[in-house]
Amino acid sequence: MTLERRLRRYLVTDSGAGSVERLVSICEEAIQGGITAVQLRAKDWSDRELLRAACDLRAACDRAGTLFIVNDRVDIALASNADGVHLGVDDLPVGVARELLGPGKVIGYSPETPDDRIAAEEAGVDYLGVGPVFGTQTKGDAGEALRLDRFAELVTQSNVPVIGIGGIAIDDARSVIKAGAVGVAVVGAVFFAKEPRAAAIELVAQIP
Amino acid sequence: MTLERRLRRYLVTDSGAGSVERLVSICEEAIQGGITAVQLRAKDWSDRELLRAACDLRAACDRAGTLFIVNDRVDIALASNADGVHLGVDDLPVGVARELLGPGKVIGYSPETPDDRIAAEEAGVDYLGVGPVFGTQTKGDAGEALRLDRFAELVTQSNVPVIGIGGIAIDDARSVIKAGAVGVAVVGAVFFAKEPRAAAIELVAQIP
Repeated sequence: MTLERRLRRYLVTDSGAGSVERLVSICEEAIQGGITAVQLRAKDWSDRELLRAACDLRAACDRAGTLFIVNDRVDIALASNADGVHLGVDDLPVGVARELLGPGKVIGYSPETPDDRIAAEEAGVDYLGVGPVFGTQTKGDAGEALRLDRFAELVTQSNVPVIGIGGIAIDDARSVIKAGAVGVAVVGAVFFAKEPRAAAIELVAQIP
Repeated sequence: MTLERRLRRYLVTDSGAGSVERLVSICEEAIQGGITAVQLRAKDWSDRELLRAACDLRAACDRAGTLFIVNDRVDIALASNADGVHLGVDDLPVGVARELLGPGKVIGYSPETPDDRIAAEEAGVDYLGVGPVFGTQTKGDAGEALRLDRFAELVTQSNVPVIGIGGIAIDDARSVIKAGAVGVAVVGAVFFAKEPRAAAIELVAQIP
């Protein structure tokens, strides 16, 4: 499957799961429902917990052919043999991560300015996470919502595949794809759904 | 110079320095005064700042032949070509760090129990940081002070070189070495000294 296709239904986790076991089990349910990529993000966890979650998610994603990405941490990605990392402006630069990970791994980046995006593209980023498309509760520092028009503009300017992120409900997914995204990153809409598997199935119905 | 000798006067940094530039300049002064190892620890800094500090410290340590260690973060150590990492119970396990860093790098560990120490030794740790020898203000979760008698006991039980850490004032350094340590880790006594270079010179006078 192409990277574009694997980025289509992209689940980002949250430390609000409370435990490694709960986080992994939510992801397993979501994968069963049709999630094609999982990003391990758990901001206030210890490295020991992160590594445990990463190794368990690596196994769960392997069983389903799901892409497995680690947020921020290149060492955790290396140690768990993740498919790649997702970086932001405060993290290791894309070029440094590329050197540490090698050419075969996937590197995603969340740019904050056009210059920032261009630098990441020049350093060999594989995809961009652009947002927040809508308002979000799960990321405190996410900034003001772009809305779909502005999002579509940013997609047009990008030279690598873009996924939309930030406050995207299941019912919004189709419009984000229509705006040019190869995929939609969901956090709350699936990770904090009463039934993550059912929510993922609904997402498949919206963006097959 | 042997590792034991390089561990002798070991400076641990603190994010209280406020900026990368200030942290690096304090370390440069301390190195001029006779510090033989620097550990970059700056708990609340972004990875981008940590990497910048690590690269600058790597250069400063190279000029002086000083050992350069990164606290917790294997990826920052790899990216800055540090001499090694210092890990604790919540960080990546010693064995995982060894796999990522390779056999040539130095791995230090702060054990919390005898089992914990033994596991680290079996996983190939190069030295142990044992403490807090005295009461400390610079590490909130450091636990109760060991005092010198108990510290000496722990040194005897260890199978790799031990440095003492935690609340060690310049005047205490000799007693920590007498208790069996190969080196003394200082934070406040040098890093927050009015004149870090002068403080390091005093430390040399205590433990040449």
